[in-house]
Formats: sequence, structure tokens, C-alpha cells
Amino acid sequence: MSGTQKSGLVVTAHPGDFVWRAGGAIALHAKLGYRMKIVCLSYGERGESQGAWKQAGMTLEACKAGRRAEAEAAAAVLGAEIEFFDASDYPLRLSEAMLDRLIDVYREVKPAFVLTHAVADPYNVDHPEAARFAQEARIIAQAAGHKPEQGVTYAAPQVFQFEPHQPEQCGFKPNRILNITEVWETKWKAFEQLPAQKHLWHYYERVALNRGMQGGRNSGKAMTYGEAYQTIFPDAVEVLA
Amino acid sequence: MSGTQKSGLVVTAHPGDFVWRAGGAIALHAKLGYRMKIVCLSYGERGESQGAWKQAGMTLEACKAGRRAEAEAAAAVLGAEIEFFDASDYPLRLSEAMLDRLIDVYREVKPAFVLTHAVADPYNVDHPEAARFAQEARIIAQAAGHKPEQGVTYAAPQVFQFEPHQPEQCGFKPNRILNITEVWETKWKAFEQLPAQKHLWHYYERVALNRGMQGGRNSGKAMTYGEAYQTIFPDAVEVLA
Amino acid sequence: MSGTQKSGLVVTAHPGDFVWRAGGAIALHAKLGYRMKIVCLSYGERGESQGAWKQAGMTLEACKAGRRAEAEAAAAVLGAEIEFFDASDYPLRLSEAMLDRLIDVYREVKPAFVLTHAVADPYNVDHPEAARFAQEARIIAQAAGHKPEQGVTYAAPQVFQFEPHQPEQCGFKPNRILNITEVWETKWKAFEQLPAQKHLWHYYERVALNRGMQGGRNSGKAMTYGEAYQTIFPDAVEVLA
Amino acid sequence: MSGTQKSGLVVTAHPGDFVWRAGGAIALHAKLGYRMKIVCLSYGERGESQGAWKQAGMTLEACKAGRRAEAEAAAAVLGAEIEFFDASDYPLRLSEAMLDRLIDVYREVKPAFVLTHAVADPYNVDHPEAARFAQEARIIAQAAGHKPEQGVTYAAPQVFQFEPHQPEQCGFKPNRILNITEVWETKWKAFEQLPAQKHLWHYYERVALNRGMQGGRNSGKAMTYGEAYQTIFPDAVEVLA
Amino acid sequence: MSGTQKSGLVVTAHPGDFVWRAGGAIALHAKLGYRMKIVCLSYGERGESQGAWKQAGMTLEACKAGRRAEAEAAAAVLGAEIEFFDASDYPLRLSEAMLDRLIDVYREVKPAFVLTHAVADPYNVDHPEAARFAQEARIIAQAAGHKPEQGVTYAAPQVFQFEPHQPEQCGFKPNRILNITEVWETKWKAFEQLPAQKHLWHYYERVALNRGMQGGRNSGKAMTYGEAYQTIFPDAVEVLA
Amino acid sequence: MSGTQKSGLVVTAHPGDFVWRAGGAIALHAKLGYRMKIVCLSYGERGESQGAWKQAGMTLEACKAGRRAEAEAAAAVLGAEIEFFDASDYPLRLSEAMLDRLIDVYREVKPAFVLTHAVADPYNVDHPEAARFAQEARIIAQAAGHKPEQGVTYAAPQVFQFEPHQPEQCGFKPNRILNITEVWETKWKAFEQLPAQKHLWHYYERVALNRGMQGGRNSGKAMTYGEAYQTIFPDAVEVLA
Repeated sequence: MSGTQKSGLVVTAHPGDFVWRAGGAIALHAKLGYRMKIVCLSYGERGESQGAWKQAGMTLEACKAGRRAEAEAAAAVLGAEIEFFDASDYPLRLSEAMLDRLIDVYREVKPAFVLTHAVADPYNVDHPEAARFAQEARIIAQAAGHKPEQGVTYAAPQVFQFEPHQPEQCGFKPNRILNITEVWETKWKAFEQLPAQKHLWHYYERVALNRGMQGGRNSGKAMTYGEAYQTIFPDAVEVLA
Repeated sequence: MSGTQKSGLVVTAHPGDFVWRAGGAIALHAKLGYRMKIVCLSYGERGESQGAWKQAGMTLEACKAGRRAEAEAAAAVLGAEIEFFDASDYPLRLSEAMLDRLIDVYREVKPAFVLTHAVADPYNVDHPEAARFAQEARIIAQAAGHKPEQGVTYAAPQVFQFEPHQPEQCGFKPNRILNITEVWETKWKAFEQLPAQKHLWHYYERVALNRGMQGGRNSGKAMTYGEAYQTIFPDAVEVLA
Repeated sequence: MSGTQKSGLVVTAHPGDFVWRAGGAIALHAKLGYRMKIVCLSYGERGESQGAWKQAGMTLEACKAGRRAEAEAAAAVLGAEIEFFDASDYPLRLSEAMLDRLIDVYREVKPAFVLTHAVADPYNVDHPEAARFAQEARIIAQAAGHKPEQGVTYAAPQVFQFEPHQPEQCGFKPNRILNITEVWETKWKAFEQLPAQKHLWHYYERVALNRGMQGGRNSGKAMTYGEAYQTIFPDAVEVLA
Repeated sequence: MSGTQKSGLVVTAHPGDFVWRAGGAIALHAKLGYRMKIVCLSYGERGESQGAWKQAGMTLEACKAGRRAEAEAAAAVLGAEIEFFDASDYPLRLSEAMLDRLIDVYREVKPAFVLTHAVADPYNVDHPEAARFAQEARIIAQAAGHKPEQGVTYAAPQVFQFEPHQPEQCGFKPNRILNITEVWETKWKAFEQLPAQKHLWHYYERVALNRGMQGGRNSGKAMTYGEAYQTIFPDAVEVLA
Repeated sequence: MSGTQKSGLVVTAHPGDFVWRAGGAIALHAKLGYRMKIVCLSYGERGESQGAWKQAGMTLEACKAGRRAEAEAAAAVLGAEIEFFDASDYPLRLSEAMLDRLIDVYREVKPAFVLTHAVADPYNVDHPEAARFAQEARIIAQAAGHKPEQGVTYAAPQVFQFEPHQPEQCGFKPNRILNITEVWETKWKAFEQLPAQKHLWHYYERVALNRGMQGGRNSGKAMTYGEAYQTIFPDAVEVLA
Repeated sequence: MSGTQKSGLVVTAHPGDFVWRAGGAIALHAKLGYRMKIVCLSYGERGESQGAWKQAGMTLEACKAGRRAEAEAAAAVLGAEIEFFDASDYPLRLSEAMLDRLIDVYREVKPAFVLTHAVADPYNVDHPEAARFAQEARIIAQAAGHKPEQGVTYAAPQVFQFEPHQPEQCGFKPNRILNITEVWETKWKAFEQLPAQKHLWHYYERVALNRGMQGGRNSGKAMTYGEAYQTIFPDAVEVLA
């Protein structure tokens, strides 16, 4: 954090991912006063823009500009900063320069947590690649000999994998269900910034309702809307429950 | 909890288990004001009393009495209540009456968490049997039709598996490292109540020191002594980190 | 099958299970002319009747009768026969006589497939116990020396595990998504036979819609409502796709 | 498929792989009227030509030509088209141009299924690389923004992993056993096109016989020769069995 | 071992198991001078005697006597002692008295290794039950308080799981391939003592040949016939290779 | 081996790794007369030199020189040759030329075993990359068509993964515990060559003591200091135990 403000970092392959999968966490922590920063690696221009490509005369540049505008609008609704790396998608090809930039972001943002994709996804090669990249940068940011002139005071944060489209096929086993009830309307408003994927709005509304009911079952306290996460590292704790 | 006091329940197969594997958590939460209750299913009289059986004229009853005294002393040091079920060990054979009693304990104690063995242990058949039993009772205690006259107001708590002797062989993958530094001396004093297993004192001191260092690595904040746990269920949470 | 009619067998711990988890498959195959038989091991009287126990003066017998009537109504809606074993629930305790009876059922029904619970479920000890029991009977039914006078002509069928409440926590990884769109209304009508669990109707409607969308994603052909299954054995096939 | 003819695609690292591991499926579907296309990524010139390199004066070009001739002969026997990418082997190094070409192949062939290597193989780095590559191309072929001028009408097919040499070491767990009895003689004739690997003919004959017996055990219907496969994705189905 | 003779213990559910799955190891170690003892828990009278039950007038007693004679003949060929527990099969039901006896056997034989079934087998409930039982006895035999008058000097040995019929479906991943080439003829002669299962002779000959070839691939030294095993515990070693 | 001397190869990402994780095995086999060769892929200059970078005016070259001197001193103490590849660390980027060189090393050293990192490590991207690289070279070294002029007479050896810092998080499940008691003092002396990481000396002393006690538990024979390893391939053996 800079000063006493806590912060969170989100690393996604495509714009839709941070909305469907992590929009609740982003909005919630933003509301709690965290600085929330999204690194969106591509515009999803080839593989996540089926609607756009049905329009006559669509070009790659026009498609990217459209997705960028939508993503900026969604990030604004959620209360987050967004930075685009403009790597290509399908496949996502990440350069050494992008790695260098993401390391700088880690060191600057000093996030209390990172949200990214599940490390496996047989349906989408970009998603695990984004997760791998987020982890690589997270680790290198700790290395004293990487840009030693920066004088690192960064500690690598916990990584929360957010929910993939078909969780069981990705080996995703959530160990946190975040209560996003109080920011649900904000998350829904972010959905509305992605009109081309309207068919997914209700899909992810159902996911949120069912994760919420599961959250209630696990805690014994009712939860209406939830988001599921799986951490990668053990948590060091001062009390169990 | 009764009133506003929180509580924790520990279910172990043998006396040593709650000392080596969960002594820090017990002492820590007792110190924090939790009611800590240990259910010790056997005295470990056959399989965990190699020392006792080297004494001439040892009998099963004498062995059990000796182990019971040690366990009571250790529980007292840690600040916990202890109840013995006097099931046999090697093998641990648990009756329906014992199940009924443990269900009552869950409903009475209303623990915020349960500590028990890992669900697999190829070295020791009693350990997974105790874990299975702790889970069965935990679940049945929720059933409205089990002793409906009790009027259940119990919600099943998170289960924390504590560390087995050879963790990798048991499929144990810790996801919590509890900082027990401030109660380490108490844990050590509990060790001293088990003089027959003195060869394990330093073994588990080393475990605690190494888990502590791992805790520090995971959080970026130094930890001297730690205890490792693996939860079974997702946690419903209001914030990520 | 007896004669040329094919048949399917469903083995569940409690009445709700065959409705929420397998109601579509039951209705669909019944509609296709299969004989569908449900073995319902308990009435779910203790653990799956939270509503009933809120009624003043409820008794175990009254609770069981109520659940039985609901289950019979639901089975009738789905087009299936139902047989109750009246084992207790929470915990489900299955006798040798029940095993003997289930073996007879296998040999008589000669099912082309069996539907039962997932083999693991940390939330519910009755579910994996029912699955274990269904498998044990399935295997013994093949033994030439079991009641040799029956002259066995039975071949053990594929086992389909149906979807548990929190699939990822049960290690459930579906490998079949059954299109239940054309029987969805029937499944919903079966839901309505279980008024005490009305809070689950929309939960499982959402599950069906989301599994349907996943089914469409996997096949490239739209599916509205789906049910997820995981087989245990390899299928012997004459063509791949 | 083009028109109403169904088709299948096979992606292998080396020539022998499509013969030993998938020869039965290729011959069977060819016989059933499917267009079968093999993409053979390398000639196996370095790592799968131990025999050739024992000949005096062998050169890389001569070795490749020899393996190519054998592979063409085997493909012809099986009734399949074959295309060589001439990537190197040991290690298999695949370029962006090859990826582009494979994507085109997917879009052109529109296969009903893909056969490729298991995703892990500690004995052979080329095999999982080929599987990864087959999956990457399969996914990108769906992206509307990849060569949008082609006007995609392709749906990504199921992936069947064929059997590696030491299946358990590769985490291979077959869920389909294909009956190849009626094309066994054709598969054997394909073996005969690979005289340098004669020591493997009887090895894979034994594999086929044992998989056949397993197929019979799983279905209750005798099978003489079988081939084992493991799918990656769930199947959307209209009936269970 | 008693005195300086080393020994090995084999615990199987049915007679065929020690022949097909461990016959090579038994014969080899017997030839090397080990005392080899087989504990055969049932006669396989119900589930592994399909042939016998085709004979008119077959009775359970006659079937058991026939299988016993075959098993004794096979054990004699292999050079092993055999003890029958006459537990029933399909399902295998093991009593406390049988457990007590097996513990005594461990203490008396002091085996350097135990051979038993894989801990999971979805095709056969008796096999994992036998493995569970073999492990329970192995552990209790170490307990100083179990029959303390015997004065235990027993150390629990490594457990080698032998190969199930469909290894991948049982999660079997071999980590030892034993060269049984020099005793292959003896193993085959043991096969011939089981004429009713003649259809399996060549099946397991093929298994042995293919495991042999795999053994050669792993070591770089040719092996003709092999048997595959998976250990449960780490080995303490004085040198790596 | 060249002539009759056996040899072992160690492939590590950074200098500390071969000391903490494999120092005992190196010293032990060196003492037994094996030629021990270490390939140290980087100097650990960025990520494993936190101490160095606290010194004013430190440069990358000075850091590398310092780490190299330490590593050479440690290798000398252990009795091993060492070769540096000077790949960068954090991230470790390995070139085709380095792969070529490592293949040559395999063919020249003809190791009886290879020691390298665990194939997964979420804390450190360099470690699994080194393991992947060690395996790729190991396999290619077998290819007859790779530098056929060398006339290969090499057989790929067993791979032993050594213990990562947080073993359970890396999926590390040891199956060998090597008794390093007689070389413990040598291993400690190697620790002393790494003064900047003094905080790890006692950490790894505790690991060695606890692995030793586990070794004793598994074998029934006391062991003071141990090192844990996990093999990747099955061992072909002539006797079980």
C-alpha cells in the first residue's frame, strides 16, 4: 500500500474476466477504501468478441477500441484503475517488456492480494498463461537483484484464483466464498457495460446466487450473492476462527 | 459458544496428538478467552505407550491410568477441559454410544472450529478413524430430527486437520500456519507432561520452528513458532486480505 | 432389461436426492420407455426434514410418513417406481438384509445404468455411504456363487454419479452433461412435490440452466437445461464420435 | 465435416504414434466413411529412429525420407490422409507458422473428434508438446477474430488422448475402450510398414488384446482387440446408456 | 525373519490373486531362500469361481474345497506356505478374530515385505478390503500393548501393492518392476493349477511380457518378464543408485 | 560411468539448492567413490542474494562473482565438480546452446542418477524450470539421431527430485530417505561456505534431523540425519526387500 491505504491487484487475460469472475471483489474492496488496480493483458479482440465480428467491416483496431471502451467503463463502475498491456489474445503472447512492466506494477501497488485466473483451463489457453505470468512477476518482484536501485520493500501477496467458466474441468476447488451481496448492484451495472455478452449476464447472476447459498451453508450465516476463490499459498494467521 | 464466549473443540485419537499437533492452537485460543474442550478418544494404551510397556508388571489398567494422568496434566497446562471416551486403541473402535455422546458435545460446546486428525494416514489406522468420527458427529449434530427435543441451534464449524507425523505421506497440504510464538513456552511445558515420549519433544520443537519460518515466508512478517493446519471446507468471508 | 425394455436404477440416500440431482434423467428415460426404478434408502427423516421438525408435536413416524408421501408423489411425476428401504438417516446404517435385497433388485431390474451419489462428500456422510452400498451390491450381483439358484444373467452396468450440492468440494468432475430440456417441466413438477424444501427449487433450476449452457459450450449445440454426471468405469464403444 | 461426411483429425509427434496408439481408430472410422486426416508433426528422425542410425552413412535427410515413406505407407493402409509439418523432434519445436497451419486444418477438416497424445509423459517431451499444440490450435480455431475473413463455422471437438507407452506413469486413465476387432488386420498391416520397430509389433498386439479383454469386462460383451482413450471434456448427451 | 532367513508375507482376498499378481515375486524370493507365506482370506467361492458354478449340483462347500486344492497346489509350485482364513467372499467379511490371527502372523513371520492388493479397486470390493486389513494388522503388530506378553521385536515392513486387473482405474502407479524372468516357468506352472481360469493365463502372460519390456525401458537393461508393484512408504536407503 | 567409476549428476537453478537440498547425497556418493558433477544453471544473483544487495555499491558482476566463489567452495567441500551455465535467474532463461551443453554432459558423465528440483514449486519459477530442463536434456541424450557421430552408449538414469523449501505446497511426496549421517559434518561445512544465508543453516539442520527420524520410523533402524527424495520413474529391481 502507499501510505496506509491497502490495495489489490487483478491480472486478467481479457476484459470480461475481471467483470464476471472478480467484479464483486473489486467493487467490495474499492468500497472499503482499497486502491484496486486491474491489469488487463489483452482486449480479447480475437477470441472474446464473437459479437463484434458479426458486424460488417469490423477491423482488429476497431474491435480493440470497442472492447477497451467497454472495459474502461466497467472498471470505472467497479471503482478500479485499469491498465492495458495490449498483448494479443488467442493466443496470448506476453513479452519480456510486459513482464518487466508487471513487476514494476507489483512493486508500486504493493497489493495485499492478487486476483487472477485458475492455473489450469482446458478450454482457454490464455487463462492459464495469464495466471502463470501473474505469478512469475509476483515472484521476481521480490528479488533484491531485480532493479536494485528501486530498493524493494515489497512482500509477495496471497494469490486468489477466481472462478473459471467450468470450474470442475479446471481443477478449481474454492476455499473462500466472498460475500458480495452489498455490491451486487454494482457488479450487475458492470455487466451492463458489456452489452455484446448479454447472454452471460444471467449465467453469472446464477453463479453468484448459487455461490451465495453455498457460502451460507458453509458458515451457517445467510449470504445472498457470493464469489468463489481458491488461494495458492497457506495463510499465516493469528487466530483460527 | 455459551453466551458470548467462543469455543473450540479438539478430537484426538490418543493423548499425545493434542499436545504435539494442536497444543499451540489450544493454548493460544484458551489465552484469548475461548473455552477449549478436548475429546480424547483413547488413552493410547496399546500403541502409543511403548515406554510404559517396558516397565515390568505393566497392566492395561495401569497403563491407561498413567496416560490419563499425563493427558490431564497436559490439558491443564494448555488451559483446556478434557473428556476421555476410553475407546480402545490399535485399533480404535468407536461405538454408537460414543457417537451419540460426541454429537451432544458438539451441540453443547457449539465450537467455532474443530481440530482433528488428517483424513488419511497410512502409518496409523486410529488417526483417520478419529477424523472420520469427528466429521460424522459434526454433521449429525445439525440434523433437526436427531434428538429434536434439544432444539438445535448449532451450525457446523470449519474443520482444521492438524499436522500428522509424516505430512506428505498423508496427503497433508497445510493452508493455514498459526502463529504460536506467544504460547510456545506453554506448549513446551505441555510436552514436559509426557516424559515417556521425550524423544519427540525436540522433534516437534523443530517442526514448530520450521513451520514458523514458513509462516514468515508466506506472509512477509517474521514468525518464530508455527503450527500447520489444513481446512476441509471453504470459508465464507467478508474481505479477502 | 426384462424382455426388450431397457431399464435404469437409481440408488439414493434420501428422497430429495433423486429429485434435485437425477430427476431429469429419470423423467427422460421414462419418457423414452425405460423402466426406471428408484431405491430410496431412507426417508431423510432426521437430516433432510428441517421443515417438518419445526412443526409442533412432530414425531419420527409422522415425519417419515410425510417424506414417504412426498417421495412417492415425486416418483410418480417422474414416471418411476420407488422402493423404500427405511434405513435410518444421519447416519445411514445399512444392514446385510438390505444389501441382499439390493442385489436382488440389480438382478431383477438388470439396469443399463445406475445413478447414485458421488463417492465422496465431506458435507454428508450418508451420501458416500449410499454410493458405496450401491457399488457393493452391483458387484456382488455378478458373483455366480451368490444365490446360484437364481441363474445369473446379469452384467454390471455403468455407474453415473449425480451432482452433489457443492461439486468441487466432493471431487466431482462431470464427464457427461445430459440434455434434460424436453423434460424440464416434469422435473420442475417433481420439485413441487417437495414443498418443505422450496428454497432449493430455484437453486436447482439455476444449476440446470448453467449445466445446460455448459453442455452447449462443450458440444457446440445449444442446450437449455442440463444435468451433470460423472461415470466411474470406461465405456466400451464402437465409434468415437 | 465437408458436406455430410464426418471426419476425424489425428495430431502426433512422430510417425509411430499414430500407428501404435490410434491405428485402430483411424482404420475403423475410415471404414465407416469418415475422412481421416493425420497431422504428423515430425518424422521422428532423431529420437524414434534408433534403427536407422545404426546404418553406416545415415544422414538426417535420408533418415527423414525413410520415415516419411514408412508413415505414408502406414497412413495409406489405414485409409487416412497425412500431412507432415517437418518440425524437428527431440525436441519438438513448433513455430507460429505451424500453429497457423494447424488452425486452418481444424477449420477445414471440421473434425468430429481429435486424437492426440496424453497431456503428460515424463519419458518423452515431444508427446505432451504435441498435445499442447493440438489443443491450442483447437481453441484458437474457434476465435471469430482469427482470420475473420474465413467466416468460421467450426465447433471445437472432443479431444481423445490415446495411450502412451507407460500409461500409469503419464496419469493416463482411459474412459473409452474402442472395439477395433474388425480392423485389427488393417492395424497389423500398418505395423508392418514400420519394419525398424518390429520389436514393438507384438508389444502393441498384446496391448490391444488386453484392452480388448478389459473392454469386455466393462461392457459384459466380449471384445477381442481394443484401443484405450481418455477424453478431456464432458460429452453433451441425449441419453445415458 | 526367524534366525537369519528372510521372509515375505502375501495377503490376498482370493486364491487367483496371489498367482496372477504376485506369483513371480513369490517364486523368486522362495528361490532366493526367503520363507514365503501366503494368507489367503477367502476361497473366492462366490465371486471368483464362475466356472465351478456352471457344474450341475455344485455346492458352496464343494466349491470351496475345489478352490482350496487349487490354491494349495499353486502355492506349492511357487514354494510358499499358505494359510486360509475362510472369510466369505463377495463380500469379504473379516472378523476381529481374523485380525488377531493376522497380527500374530506378522509377529511370527517378521516379513521383510508384504504384498497385497491396491488400496482402491472400483471393480471389486474385496480387494481394497483385503489391503485395508493387511495394513491394519501390520500397524497393530507394532503396538507394545497388544499382547505385551509376546515381547514384540517386530518392525513394520514396506507394503508392495501388486497389480490390479485394470490398473489405471484403481489409481495404481507402479514404482517397482520386478524382474521375474528366471522364475517365469514356475509362475506359468502355477497358472496351470487354476484350470477354470484358463482364459486368464495368456492375459497375465501378456501383462508379464509388457511389464518386462517397460522394466527394460526404465533401466536400460533388457527384461523379459516383469511384475509391477507400488510401494506405500518411503524407503530408507544408504545409497541412491 | 567412465570405466568402472559410477557417477551422479546434479542440476540446480541456484548455488544454495545443491547445498541445502542435496549436499548430503553429493558428499555421500563422493565418499563412496562416485564422480559427482554439479551443473549450476545460474549464480542466483538476482533472487537468491538478498544479503549481497544490501551492500553499498553492489553490481551484478560482483554479485555473481561472489556467489560463484561460494558455490565453488561448497562444491569442493562436498567433493564435487561444478560447472556454471551463467543463465540469468529470476527468471531463469535457458538457451538452446545450454540445452545442447547439458545433453553433452549427460552423455559424457553417464550418471547413474540425476538430482534436481521438484517439478512444481509455486514459490519459485526457476526451480521447476530447472527440473524441466534437466529432464528434457536427459531424454534427448538418448536420441540416436542427436549428434549421431558421438555414438551414444548412454541410458537415461532415474531422476531424484530433492526437497523444496515447502514440500507439501510443491506436491512433493518423498519415497526415499537417504541416510546422510556419516557425511553430516561435511554437509554442515558446506553450509558454512554460504555465510550470507546463515539464517537457513539451522533450518536445514532441523530438516535433516526430522527426515532422519522419519527414515528411522520407516525402516525400524535408527537414522540421525536424512535427506528426502522423490523419484519420477519406476525402478527395475531384482529383489523387493
